[in-house]
Amino acid sequence: MRTSQTLIPTLREDPGEAETVSHRLMLRAGLIRKVAAGIYTYLPLGLRIIRKVEQIIREEMNRAGAQELLMPIASPAELWKETGRWDYYGKELLRFKDRHERDFCLGPTHEEVITDLFRREVRSYRQLPVNFYQIQTKFRDEIRPRFGLMRGREFIMKDAYSFDVDEAGAKLSYQKMYDAYTRIFTRCGLTFRAVEADTGLIGGDVSHEFMVLAETGEATVVYTDKGAYAANLERAEVPPPADADPSPLRPLAPAATPQRRTVDEVTAFLKVSPRQLVKTLLYTAEKDTVAVLIRGDHEVNEVKVARLLGVNEIQLATPEKVKELTGAPPGFAGPVGLKVRILADHAVKGMKNFVVGANQPDTHYVDANLDRDFSVDRFADLRNAQAGDPSPRGDGALVVAKGIEVGQVFLLGTKYSQKMNATILDDQGKERLAIMGCYGIGVGRTAAAAIEQNHDERGIIWPYPIAPFHLHLLPVSQSEKTAQATAALYDALQAAGFEVLWDDREERAGVKFNDADLIGAPFQVVVGDKGLADGVVEIKVRRTGAKSRVAPAEIVNHLRALVSASA
Amino acid sequence: MRTSQTLIPTLREDPGEAETVSHRLMLRAGLIRKVAAGIYTYLPLGLRIIRKVEQIIREEMNRAGAQELLMPIASPAELWKETGRWDYYGKELLRFKDRHERDFCLGPTHEEVITDLFRREVRSYRQLPVNFYQIQTKFRDEIRPRFGLMRGREFIMKDAYSFDVDEAGAKLSYQKMYDAYTRIFTRCGLTFRAVEADTGLIGGDVSHEFMVLAETGEATVVYTDKGAYAANLERAEVPPPADADPSPLRPLAPAATPQRRTVDEVTAFLKVSPRQLVKTLLYTAEKDTVAVLIRGDHEVNEVKVARLLGVNEIQLATPEKVKELTGAPPGFAGPVGLKVRILADHAVKGMKNFVVGANQPDTHYVDANLDRDFSVDRFADLRNAQAGDPSPRGDGALVVAKGIEVGQVFLLGTKYSQKMNATILDDQGKERLAIMGCYGIGVGRTAAAAIEQNHDERGIIWPYPIAPFHLHLLPVSQSEKTAQATAALYDALQAAGFEVLWDDREERAGVKFNDADLIGAPFQVVVGDKGLADGVVEIKVRRTGAKSRVAPAEIVNHLRALVSASA
Repeated sequence: MRTSQTLIPTLREDPGEAETVSHRLMLRAGLIRKVAAGIYTYLPLGLRIIRKVEQIIREEMNRAGAQELLMPIASPAELWKETGRWDYYGKELLRFKDRHERDFCLGPTHEEVITDLFRREVRSYRQLPVNFYQIQTKFRDEIRPRFGLMRGREFIMKDAYSFDVDEAGAKLSYQKMYDAYTRIFTRCGLTFRAVEADTGLIGGDVSHEFMVLAETGEATVVYTDKGAYAANLERAEVPPPADADPSPLRPLAPAATPQRRTVDEVTAFLKVSPRQLVKTLLYTAEKDTVAVLIRGDHEVNEVKVARLLGVNEIQLATPEKVKELTGAPPGFAGPVGLKVRILADHAVKGMKNFVVGANQPDTHYVDANLDRDFSVDRFADLRNAQAGDPSPRGDGALVVAKGIEVGQVFLLGTKYSQKMNATILDDQGKERLAIMGCYGIGVGRTAAAAIEQNHDERGIIWPYPIAPFHLHLLPVSQSEKTAQATAALYDALQAAGFEVLWDDREERAGVKFNDADLIGAPFQVVVGDKGLADGVVEIKVRRTGAKSRVAPAEIVNHLRALVSASA
Repeated sequence: MRTSQTLIPTLREDPGEAETVSHRLMLRAGLIRKVAAGIYTYLPLGLRIIRKVEQIIREEMNRAGAQELLMPIASPAELWKETGRWDYYGKELLRFKDRHERDFCLGPTHEEVITDLFRREVRSYRQLPVNFYQIQTKFRDEIRPRFGLMRGREFIMKDAYSFDVDEAGAKLSYQKMYDAYTRIFTRCGLTFRAVEADTGLIGGDVSHEFMVLAETGEATVVYTDKGAYAANLERAEVPPPADADPSPLRPLAPAATPQRRTVDEVTAFLKVSPRQLVKTLLYTAEKDTVAVLIRGDHEVNEVKVARLLGVNEIQLATPEKVKELTGAPPGFAGPVGLKVRILADHAVKGMKNFVVGANQPDTHYVDANLDRDFSVDRFADLRNAQAGDPSPRGDGALVVAKGIEVGQVFLLGTKYSQKMNATILDDQGKERLAIMGCYGIGVGRTAAAAIEQNHDERGIIWPYPIAPFHLHLLPVSQSEKTAQATAALYDALQAAGFEVLWDDREERAGVKFNDADLIGAPFQVVVGDKGLADGVVEIKVRRTGAKSRVAPAEIVNHLRALVSASA
């Protein structure tokens, strides 16, 4: 494709609206433009990338035996009322009325619509398993859409739904999708981890998230180097420590800690390790307040605390509440004499002679001890896993990394089939609820994650399989000789199966080089009078910057070798 | 693909909801299912057809130099307010509010969004011409959605928008699209005509509709056999007749016509030809009433009358109004003594001694004459063209046919660029409004029109290029021998590039034949023990029913020959 005939409005300056690398580079490279908050137009280059990701997904879904269909964007309220999600789903579900005042929503996901199709069209276990998927535009009215395609309101998603006659079949369908997702993200050229995850709004029993590893990721994942265990931080289990501190108990003693509130301040002042302090955090959970005890060098995992308490979410108590319950400002709370329910992380159980707040201003206790000085109502796994923690599967130490969720698979069970009465006849002629799974991939988000993982200060470095073009052809002089050589190369490279973007603008070489690095095709082919005089053109590998000079007749073979080497 | 692994819920009975052939057959063949009024899920086979039409469109749009991009479905009100269409567009524009109470609509068309992109990203005449297109889901909240994909609310459309610096360029862009559309519908295997058309809600100066000819079509088109002139009925011009009746005038005389009101009743009773009668139709146009005179064998074209009067629409006057103005019930109105403005079709001008209503119950006049008995305020082209009428281009007689509009092209001019201030710098450095064109194809409607044009009483007969599968492979016995031969054929046919649907269900031959005829793959390959004993399988051409017996080793060549012959 010729640059002069394609809208590629590259920007030299960082656009003000962009907060993340991928958002900034997608705007700068002319891939997308904003129409409204969280709503974008995909420009020609952006659309090419989207289509490549879609095609990889499609091929692997088909290979896994899934059937492609296409459901509507407008979804009638009746179906959502059957499952209760019409009321339960928050404002992200964009509801509207048609001209006849009938209620609809813009589909943010399609469990209801597909389950309705299934119950009307599939009757017998003989037709199972089935897995229906679509690649379709979704709408979720995010309260604060941001980061470009990473958290948009209108976005393209692949969603799939499996139906099985029994649990064993459902697990197999789930595993097939897990395997397909692994192939998909591998084929996209991404470094990723599948991690155990919570099931959230979608529900169900088992779930994995597929996380593209990138320093700029919003999510934290932990895994073992050997890869046998991986989970997102919310979910990652921390086993109880094996050994307890064998020290003899010392008597409880108050210590003045004037204006020292944080773990760092208190332990530095008292000259002890943070491992020798127990933090006391007060949380409000619905109407109750609880105290959570956690070792000084650990962090509370609020999802775990909420799950233990059986509530949707918890909040840190207000300073006023802390004062009311402890008699002291925040920073000096402690378990000794505290009149609320006390939960403690497993790590606290083995500790001896530790520092806690004294529930008096500017005072801590040193040498506090469990049972003797206070009692704990419940010990549990309440903290975030940390690098170096032992794996809960006993397969080594955990590594921590940042990631971007690009896909998630759920074993749903009968959550939807029960509410919508989606049954099938089993081999005994008995009606059974279908066992479902659902499986999503954010298409645009996958492209954005690829950028977060593959860029440098000059621009994007596309993985070959999802690059908008394989090659950027850059004539750097305006001579007839260069023009002819470029045209011949363009034809030869396209005939060899390469997708070529030919920068045929009358621009300076520097402008072309900058745009090429920004747009990020894996290879650049530079054609100029100087090289041609020596019988060569220059090939630059975008990722490494490595350059080589090659005779035009050799270029196809040379590029094929480079592609093989980079795969 | 195997039938057992694909959802193809064929129906034996005609579904009650379907009114047209294509709607009925799309439901019966398991191509689509209704989710809500005018809103459908495309099942696997339906989606394959849609994708084939899309791909043909995409290839021809690209070949014509258009650039594919993708705009959002949710469209912010601000842009629509700039052009005035936020208020002007009726209830078909589905408006909604997001969680922050901002106004949006579901895009029924994208002139506003693309013009906004253009004005922000394109600056110079050097970047022109450009033509941006997308294949995207649209929503129009039709008051009475019907006929399946023919008039849905949510539907897939290819829409394109061209921008030029001057009229000459815009006409060239228009012609390129006209040519591309001609290639697209030809490649889809359809019989169609491009006809001159009105511009309606979209606006602009020049427009053509692409009509698939089918007896069941809603629209009427006229054209000359040689093909130089073609128009839809609303638009088709009728030149004034060349010659006038040379008869001498006879005196006006009343004639009793008891209970005879219609042209047929009156002319049969008076024993004259309908060509010798002038109908007088009273129309209400906004606040006025006018009379329209039209020869007895002609039909009023209300669009032409409305255009002449400069109003959006006209209605036949109520019986009460007719009585008030003529003193007689409907059926006896005439121009003699009538106190309203009188318009007459050109054909009336040359008539002599004709029959008209007498504005008295049960009475007509015979031998009425222009000027002597009444005067006409304006003669104009006010009737529908009819078969046999001379072409307005002088290239022969008109033919009339029914058609289905599948595409329309518009030369918009500056309608949108002016309101949205979409300017470019010309080669003198002067700002100019971009000259636009827009171009739409209904993707699902094209598939539906293909069915209306290609079916018989047993089902669909797909044109090869858009068939969901090229071949339907039908094993008709359950023997091991047949199973093996079928599996081998399946592999061989797919390896040869054919798309094969293998009916691997354990069903009777009759059921398989019925489904195959219903689904309508162009070719059926029947494999059975009897044939195999003779060393042959049977090939049936769906369109002609012609059958041939072919050795399995010959089948690929044989089918290729059949495909060539049918193309």
